[in-house]
Amino acid sequence: MNIDMIRAAEARLKGAVRETPLLSSPALDAIAGRRVLVKPECLQHTGSFKLRGGWSAVSALPPVALERGVIAFSSGNHAQGVALAARRHSAPAVIVMPSDAPAVKIANTRELGAEIVLYDRVTEDRDAIGAALAAERGLTLIKPFDEPQVIAGQGTAGLEIARQSLALGVTEAEVFVPCGGGGLSSGIALACEAAAPGLRIRTAEPEAFDDTARSLASGCIQRNTRLSGSLCDAIVTPQPGNLTFPILARLAGPGLVVTEDEALRAMAMAFAHLRIVVEPGGAVALAAALFHPEESQADTVIAVCSGGNVDAAIFALALSKLEAA
Amino acid sequence: MNIDMIRAAEARLKGAVRETPLLSSPALDAIAGRRVLVKPECLQHTGSFKLRGGWSAVSALPPVALERGVIAFSSGNHAQGVALAARRHSAPAVIVMPSDAPAVKIANTRELGAEIVLYDRVTEDRDAIGAALAAERGLTLIKPFDEPQVIAGQGTAGLEIARQSLALGVTEAEVFVPCGGGGLSSGIALACEAAAPGLRIRTAEPEAFDDTARSLASGCIQRNTRLSGSLCDAIVTPQPGNLTFPILARLAGPGLVVTEDEALRAMAMAFAHLRIVVEPGGAVALAAALFHPEESQADTVIAVCSGGNVDAAIFALALSKLEAA
Repeated sequence: MNIDMIRAAEARLKGAVRETPLLSSPALDAIAGRRVLVKPECLQHTGSFKLRGGWSAVSALPPVALERGVIAFSSGNHAQGVALAARRHSAPAVIVMPSDAPAVKIANTRELGAEIVLYDRVTEDRDAIGAALAAERGLTLIKPFDEPQVIAGQGTAGLEIARQSLALGVTEAEVFVPCGGGGLSSGIALACEAAAPGLRIRTAEPEAFDDTARSLASGCIQRNTRLSGSLCDAIVTPQPGNLTFPILARLAGPGLVVTEDEALRAMAMAFAHLRIVVEPGGAVALAAALFHPEESQADTVIAVCSGGNVDAAIFALALSKLEAA
Repeated sequence: MNIDMIRAAEARLKGAVRETPLLSSPALDAIAGRRVLVKPECLQHTGSFKLRGGWSAVSALPPVALERGVIAFSSGNHAQGVALAARRHSAPAVIVMPSDAPAVKIANTRELGAEIVLYDRVTEDRDAIGAALAAERGLTLIKPFDEPQVIAGQGTAGLEIARQSLALGVTEAEVFVPCGGGGLSSGIALACEAAAPGLRIRTAEPEAFDDTARSLASGCIQRNTRLSGSLCDAIVTPQPGNLTFPILARLAGPGLVVTEDEALRAMAMAFAHLRIVVEPGGAVALAAALFHPEESQADTVIAVCSGGNVDAAIFALALSKLEAA
């Protein structure tokens, strides 16, 4: 896992992945008490950064593997990223999803041309279903984060951040990144180490699902005690990855933790001042930038808004925070 | 009023105005039955394209005029565009606003450093107040649309559209543009005439405020019968401008007209599939692209989403259209 893989991924992603801008607003700077730059990966195709890793992994496969196809386990953003990447490579894609996944996410993934295999969370074993399908058809599994080509793809967001912040004259800053399994944050950390060493990566997580913050603090991998019940579902994972954690331990931290209410309020601020749609899990880094100013000494914070696939009802809940403010 | 003025404005705007991307989504293409590209000027600084015209006009002033300052009449997007442009040029800005303007718009404009002068719509004469202030302090009036340097500034969005669509291999398309006084649509029309002559401009307006569509159809300027009561307040003006209309009559049309409900549904589609926040008046061109497919023969429609300054309550109303769909 190194910077050359990220640069190679960037070359493969050219034309397929959108270079998202760096946004800013005087109002957000005023709230945070420092300069805040926002990297809106919610504007990425499929609505999240996950297309980067999916495309990187799929495009790295040899022709014979592409012909057989790929498989992924995901009910959300990774599913759509892999599905779109596979379709554009004319590779069959099988996405294994829990049968209680939101209908809209199932429909969106199917619309991208993927074959959806549903399983019952209570009575069926997801991994067994996936392994049987993969063996039968010779499918390649695209893991969501603990996979070198996926980390390399997510790291391309870091190369963009490095170039874009240098173009603005920003050489010293902290980069706050929403963190589930750590694919995005570790990829960005590796990219910035090479391309903009004055940028320091900080992971951001929701309260009660702060496995990465605790792992970084203790120096070894810690697990979450529960795995459901968070509005920030997109970034809830059991624990940091075996590949991602050593990278984060070397290059990132301390981990930032925000409340769900702060994530919703950050969504409302992004609506009002940047005119972008961010999902709760995608808003935790912006929430840390806006509402935890004491946790950083940096003059500039770059907050990644990692995705924007959110139901209208949850978004309306976030907007209600604006009216109350 | 010519292309050289637009190119000169683009040089002055460099670094001050964001080059907004062209967004797209397979879901929107499917609804429209053709390729739809979206130019999200809601992501512009201040949340609308109005910064382009404001910056162009302010930056064209001689030093002595900048020192005295500028004045604008506006309760909305033009106010913020002029206020930000003036602040960055160290020029005083006076914005004359009706006292019943939304508190948030008054606050946002004041936050940008402008002096706000409020007047009573019923008992006071806005133009008399403005003229007295301008004369007393030697302020330069920045008109919202019928002013060459403002049209030139708005035209820079057209130069971007021309370059970006050519980069995608699109040489023939229709460009749907929300139209109030016609500054944006006439500027884009002039830019495309020179830089991408295969792009045809179509104005888009809300029902009952379709002065431009009727003017284009009849060949002479027609007025709206009423001037309030539209959700699309940002693009409601009494009539096309004396400078903008001849340009539109030569280069644009026929005019497109959508209902308020269609504008709200377009906002919901932009939320769900592009993750951007668009205001009702800014969504009329996207509404025409999505819901009036019969009105164009083009393979590709480029829809400008001109602004995103919308109250949470109105946005929630738009989201409710999504739940109903």
